[in-house]
Amino acid sequence: MMNTAPAGLVTDIVARTLAEDLGGRGDVTTLATIPADATAEFDIVAREAGVLAGRQAACEVFTQIDPAIVSNWRHGDGARIEAGDVVSRLSGPARSLLTAERAALNFLGRMSGIATLTRAYVDAIEGTGAVIAHTRKTTPGLRALELQAVKAGGGASHRYGLDDAILIKDNHVAVCGSVAEAVRRARGFAGHMTRVAVEIDRLDQLDEALAAGAESVLLDNFPLEDLRAAVAAAKGRAALEASGGVNLGTARAIAGTGVDVISVGALTHSAPNFDVGLDAV
Amino acid sequence: MMNTAPAGLVTDIVARTLAEDLGGRGDVTTLATIPADATAEFDIVAREAGVLAGRQAACEVFTQIDPAIVSNWRHGDGARIEAGDVVSRLSGPARSLLTAERAALNFLGRMSGIATLTRAYVDAIEGTGAVIAHTRKTTPGLRALELQAVKAGGGASHRYGLDDAILIKDNHVAVCGSVAEAVRRARGFAGHMTRVAVEIDRLDQLDEALAAGAESVLLDNFPLEDLRAAVAAAKGRAALEASGGVNLGTARAIAGTGVDVISVGALTHSAPNFDVGLDAV
Amino acid sequence: MMNTAPAGLVTDIVARTLAEDLGGRGDVTTLATIPADATAEFDIVAREAGVLAGRQAACEVFTQIDPAIVSNWRHGDGARIEAGDVVSRLSGPARSLLTAERAALNFLGRMSGIATLTRAYVDAIEGTGAVIAHTRKTTPGLRALELQAVKAGGGASHRYGLDDAILIKDNHVAVCGSVAEAVRRARGFAGHMTRVAVEIDRLDQLDEALAAGAESVLLDNFPLEDLRAAVAAAKGRAALEASGGVNLGTARAIAGTGVDVISVGALTHSAPNFDVGLDAV
Amino acid sequence: MMNTAPAGLVTDIVARTLAEDLGGRGDVTTLATIPADATAEFDIVAREAGVLAGRQAACEVFTQIDPAIVSNWRHGDGARIEAGDVVSRLSGPARSLLTAERAALNFLGRMSGIATLTRAYVDAIEGTGAVIAHTRKTTPGLRALELQAVKAGGGASHRYGLDDAILIKDNHVAVCGSVAEAVRRARGFAGHMTRVAVEIDRLDQLDEALAAGAESVLLDNFPLEDLRAAVAAAKGRAALEASGGVNLGTARAIAGTGVDVISVGALTHSAPNFDVGLDAV
Amino acid sequence: MMNTAPAGLVTDIVARTLAEDLGGRGDVTTLATIPADATAEFDIVAREAGVLAGRQAACEVFTQIDPAIVSNWRHGDGARIEAGDVVSRLSGPARSLLTAERAALNFLGRMSGIATLTRAYVDAIEGTGAVIAHTRKTTPGLRALELQAVKAGGGASHRYGLDDAILIKDNHVAVCGSVAEAVRRARGFAGHMTRVAVEIDRLDQLDEALAAGAESVLLDNFPLEDLRAAVAAAKGRAALEASGGVNLGTARAIAGTGVDVISVGALTHSAPNFDVGLDAV
Amino acid sequence: MMNTAPAGLVTDIVARTLAEDLGGRGDVTTLATIPADATAEFDIVAREAGVLAGRQAACEVFTQIDPAIVSNWRHGDGARIEAGDVVSRLSGPARSLLTAERAALNFLGRMSGIATLTRAYVDAIEGTGAVIAHTRKTTPGLRALELQAVKAGGGASHRYGLDDAILIKDNHVAVCGSVAEAVRRARGFAGHMTRVAVEIDRLDQLDEALAAGAESVLLDNFPLEDLRAAVAAAKGRAALEASGGVNLGTARAIAGTGVDVISVGALTHSAPNFDVGLDAV
Repeated sequence: MMNTAPAGLVTDIVARTLAEDLGGRGDVTTLATIPADATAEFDIVAREAGVLAGRQAACEVFTQIDPAIVSNWRHGDGARIEAGDVVSRLSGPARSLLTAERAALNFLGRMSGIATLTRAYVDAIEGTGAVIAHTRKTTPGLRALELQAVKAGGGASHRYGLDDAILIKDNHVAVCGSVAEAVRRARGFAGHMTRVAVEIDRLDQLDEALAAGAESVLLDNFPLEDLRAAVAAAKGRAALEASGGVNLGTARAIAGTGVDVISVGALTHSAPNFDVGLDAV
Repeated sequence: MMNTAPAGLVTDIVARTLAEDLGGRGDVTTLATIPADATAEFDIVAREAGVLAGRQAACEVFTQIDPAIVSNWRHGDGARIEAGDVVSRLSGPARSLLTAERAALNFLGRMSGIATLTRAYVDAIEGTGAVIAHTRKTTPGLRALELQAVKAGGGASHRYGLDDAILIKDNHVAVCGSVAEAVRRARGFAGHMTRVAVEIDRLDQLDEALAAGAESVLLDNFPLEDLRAAVAAAKGRAALEASGGVNLGTARAIAGTGVDVISVGALTHSAPNFDVGLDAV
Repeated sequence: MMNTAPAGLVTDIVARTLAEDLGGRGDVTTLATIPADATAEFDIVAREAGVLAGRQAACEVFTQIDPAIVSNWRHGDGARIEAGDVVSRLSGPARSLLTAERAALNFLGRMSGIATLTRAYVDAIEGTGAVIAHTRKTTPGLRALELQAVKAGGGASHRYGLDDAILIKDNHVAVCGSVAEAVRRARGFAGHMTRVAVEIDRLDQLDEALAAGAESVLLDNFPLEDLRAAVAAAKGRAALEASGGVNLGTARAIAGTGVDVISVGALTHSAPNFDVGLDAV
Repeated sequence: MMNTAPAGLVTDIVARTLAEDLGGRGDVTTLATIPADATAEFDIVAREAGVLAGRQAACEVFTQIDPAIVSNWRHGDGARIEAGDVVSRLSGPARSLLTAERAALNFLGRMSGIATLTRAYVDAIEGTGAVIAHTRKTTPGLRALELQAVKAGGGASHRYGLDDAILIKDNHVAVCGSVAEAVRRARGFAGHMTRVAVEIDRLDQLDEALAAGAESVLLDNFPLEDLRAAVAAAKGRAALEASGGVNLGTARAIAGTGVDVISVGALTHSAPNFDVGLDAV
Repeated sequence: MMNTAPAGLVTDIVARTLAEDLGGRGDVTTLATIPADATAEFDIVAREAGVLAGRQAACEVFTQIDPAIVSNWRHGDGARIEAGDVVSRLSGPARSLLTAERAALNFLGRMSGIATLTRAYVDAIEGTGAVIAHTRKTTPGLRALELQAVKAGGGASHRYGLDDAILIKDNHVAVCGSVAEAVRRARGFAGHMTRVAVEIDRLDQLDEALAAGAESVLLDNFPLEDLRAAVAAAKGRAALEASGGVNLGTARAIAGTGVDVISVGALTHSAPNFDVGLDAV
Repeated sequence: MMNTAPAGLVTDIVARTLAEDLGGRGDVTTLATIPADATAEFDIVAREAGVLAGRQAACEVFTQIDPAIVSNWRHGDGARIEAGDVVSRLSGPARSLLTAERAALNFLGRMSGIATLTRAYVDAIEGTGAVIAHTRKTTPGLRALELQAVKAGGGASHRYGLDDAILIKDNHVAVCGSVAEAVRRARGFAGHMTRVAVEIDRLDQLDEALAAGAESVLLDNFPLEDLRAAVAAAKGRAALEASGGVNLGTARAIAGTGVDVISVGALTHSAPNFDVGLDAV
């Protein structure tokens, strides 16, 4: 359990997912066509190359459908896999395997899609000092699993939610009147265990943010030259994070400016599904 | 309530989403920097052109965060919107608005992304007799909302889950021994209110499926000429559904073969996020 | 799991049932009077003849109370049993067995009552071409289990709920203006996997319903001669369902008219309890 | 709220009931056939004579489906009603009314069925000193509502569940060795706020029970002469409850023996549905 | 399971407790610093003398975090333990043990604190005929566990909640007009299995309460001489309960007056934590 | 909502609390003795001096019991109140007020107890540079509310749970082999938004901790002179937190050493209840 999302959360997510798929009558197709005593063997097979994620949730699907399903995993979260690779060999009651198929594949497809896209960004900036981080632009209800997938792809952590770190955005600044005032209020409110970050959209706000005690500064939609200037000006006094306009074509240049973190909403909100299927052995 | 997903489901999904974002302490940034009595006005603004969806969930976010938030919607689900369009004007306590921002935008972004991609497929086959339908390849836990978004984009319904229709897949056929046997068992099991569909992957299975009483036949990964041959052979005796290898470049040609339904997993598993933001008025 | 209701649903129903019976202190009588280390053996015994149902829920009661309870079932759902038959032999901790007794018997009594009544209807029409089907007049919260019990008694499926098939009732017709208009709207709304049925209360509405594309017609409170006339007129173009005024005395005559389905609300809303008790071995 | 079951319980029961009926897509028939802006007026009408119950749950159905539904109740729980009586006039959005119909009627039908049967027993023993009480043979998950219905029919309370009173049954006595020992243990365990009752099946156990301090004695399946003898012997030292073999034909004679309480499992496990429908005004 | 609180309740309480501690990312310290394959052995050690309670909840913490944790308990609920005593030896995956530590200790510390304080009161009145009982002044959400802890400390039961016994308080009397009227109404409402108690604050109300049929009288804030007078006047016709102004210095004198029950809110609302820690073996 | 715990959490906590108090029948005393149409007015009155907290939960109790209860609060969380002060005047249906009384007072009593104790610690160190912080030794299930109460008493935040900051404890160090290695692993794991703290129990570990990059160091059970030495050695490079052996008599001396934070488990695990009652106006 311990190197994945909290077990209780995953149990809940899977239970709700099965409820929406099974309704009140269950898998009528399988009940109609497959004898109760039939057994079967299936392989979960990758249809393309990528990075695996979602194994914890897929296992939970099998457990909740039928503890008699045995899964023999050949790859874990974070593994690079090729088209045609067998990810896991499943055996057990044929009815249970067929009922579990789509729910398990949906988890693996979405989470591996996120891991694969994350890995592409991480590879793109390899050798620079920057890391690729997620944002809070996650799928409603699936944040815990999606951040696991980002990690499986080599991505770095950002704050999980609104309550575990302070990140002052432009609209907060607008209401407060200034970056300095907002950071000052935040430091007074936060305990000694909470970090304070602030988003700025102009280079001239950087000194103000640093002087007020920001520990991280989010440089939103900065041109490359301004990113470079910010790195030079900050002199390591705070972590610098770039966001906005990041794609696989621009990430390396942005990392080359010397920023510490590049945050990418697309990792979780726009990753295409990773194609994975179930084949009879 | 009535032209959207069941209210109880949406209430639950939003509650879980807010729980993961607010944790046990809530939005500490906003609590730290924004006075309790400040009020504000914000616009939800589209950053690109597309089709809106997700309004019911966004409204539920506002209600759960603070019933004092007033939202004045200028567009409803299914509306085509342009970059820069104001989707809704929000007013109310500044703290509540800032706390609700990301959760509401996450719903709108994902659901509008699905609606926008669906609309692109629907437009691509306009004038043919076919419809674009979703699959069960939906985001775990969000099926009800995602199928609403498909509908907002002009897409057609398929079965919701495993329990409301019978769709015999290739693996069911493998265990049963033949398409005919599987369909026969299914018709014997199903009541008079449940449809029976069967997936085939070779043209020569079509006659067998129709003779056994299939009401819908899913033609998986058929070349165009085989789709045309299937339409000719079926003579309207069953709905014909094409799936596999469908993209925006191929959809119109597939529809042109005369099939009734084209089902597209990408509508829900790979739609990129629709870009929507919150701007101070 | 697979030939019964979805496991998650049954787990929930049983958990709520035990919560209402155990409250916050549990079975104080048993705690007061039975030593913690006492073991016992009990038989679940039928007190009358009938058809068994409810085994899945009863097993779940035992599992939730104490996994150390061992149950040795001699009959499964659907079995015809006689007064005095031992349904299952239970052994384990005496406290756990006594605490579980009433909850388990309540499930068996109600579900077997439904199965027994259903079987009486099914036997009454044996040899005709008709089937006996349930309705949505089920006990709030127990639909999944009750429809299992109907099936155990030999009954046929109808739609499960409001969302898995379209059944246009008289009040829908009244608002729409005509049977034809209502069916037309329904067919336009439904996907290719959803059946459309319509209720009529006069023979002259049948042609209109069939012409509009209804796949099933519910003949509500039709006299026998009108049922016969409807069968003759429909010529197999749609499934014909009779409802209203059905009891064990009239069912066979109704089935004799040639209708395909007879739906009986009493199966679930008025089945008397099946008498079953727990006897020390 | 206060003269009915705890509001939270009713909210939960209704939410689960609507979930099973609405699934993930809601009432597709109504969505397909009824315009979103149509309004309507319906009467809930009794189809037979009886005693009303279930109003709290029915109201909660309307609230959860659509707070815009207005219900104007002409009768409350416990009212005697005649066939044709309008129980409540409903008005509001036509879609919402039609979606709520079956769930609301299912609650009213079951609960009024229980109240009606209870009232028949209460009337049958009118003028005797006895009361009619429920048992724990209730529908799984609905105990709170069903005991309300018993009360609406004039019935008396028994213990609610296993935790709020001590009732030593025959199997407890068997394990303990004697009635006296079981009662003694129970009195030692119970606090000063918990009553102790014991079931006996032979007259000669009565003295032992009373001597050990039982405050209530359940006389199971006693012939009338033994009931009379028990009343004479007890001399008011404990409440005497008769159970077993009670029906509408025997109740009055049993009450005539002088017992204090007659408990009837059939009130909740075998009450036929009360027929109630929804008519357009 | 059977000599503790209902298992389902404990499962729920522990699940919510772990959810608040683990959030969406789990124990990041442990994930960061402890290898996944490390195993460890720890002792739960008492840091002071007292009475143990909370074992059921602590075990449930271990089960929910990781079923691979093995706990070897040397003491059960109710055991008197000394500073330095090993309560339980734990072994298993090091990550799981460290993640479970605080939640398990929080349960043991609070429940043992309650048991220890209860035991002090029980010891203080040893040899008198009175018992020490809890009140409803329990920690919100933890009543079932806290009353177990009171029992572990030798305390007696009172009513569990508002629904399992009738206790008329001063404010009820005020609205009713008199003690007699309130008790009369209560006896008419209560079934034969529910006890009726009434709180009085003046000696002259005692006769009225007894005459009206109260089975228990709560003497609130009575001076010792009035308690003695009440005992004399009641002559065993009802249980007498003293409350108010009870502390470890006054309890014995109060018990010496001859009252049956002394109820102490502090047992659950003000018990200091029992100090217990986790030491590496 | 916004200056308190997340609303959804509070709703859940209160719902569970009412469920345990109301059971399946509700407040039978009130139903028995108070007419349905009686109204009343009550004051929530402080019986001692202290600091108020728990208002949000108390209000939620009233809302869930009966929205018709009107509460007129004269003091908010954090207010210093005297014995006899009216905290809030309540009016509404008498039944609802009496049913809500105990649950509301239980929340106010516990939370005000925590706030009052916290305030005593904060006052004790007034004028020093230190702050008083909570720990994770909170009541299971109530952490969100209890940390609100600490804040109401003037206390400072620490990490909320295991997932929002890294705090390396002695047992982590033991498994890792050294403070330096543990901190190094933690910094590599943590994102740029997560702080890393480490607990040491000897002064000589301080340099190692600082050199490895700890941002906060927890000095566990340090004598005063070691605390002073640590402050001198750290030179502001990290926040210094003292814990262990803190009580109202020692707190000021500890603060005088120059540490930044004093964490006190007793704030939440051993605060005595604040005495508050309900008086008829």
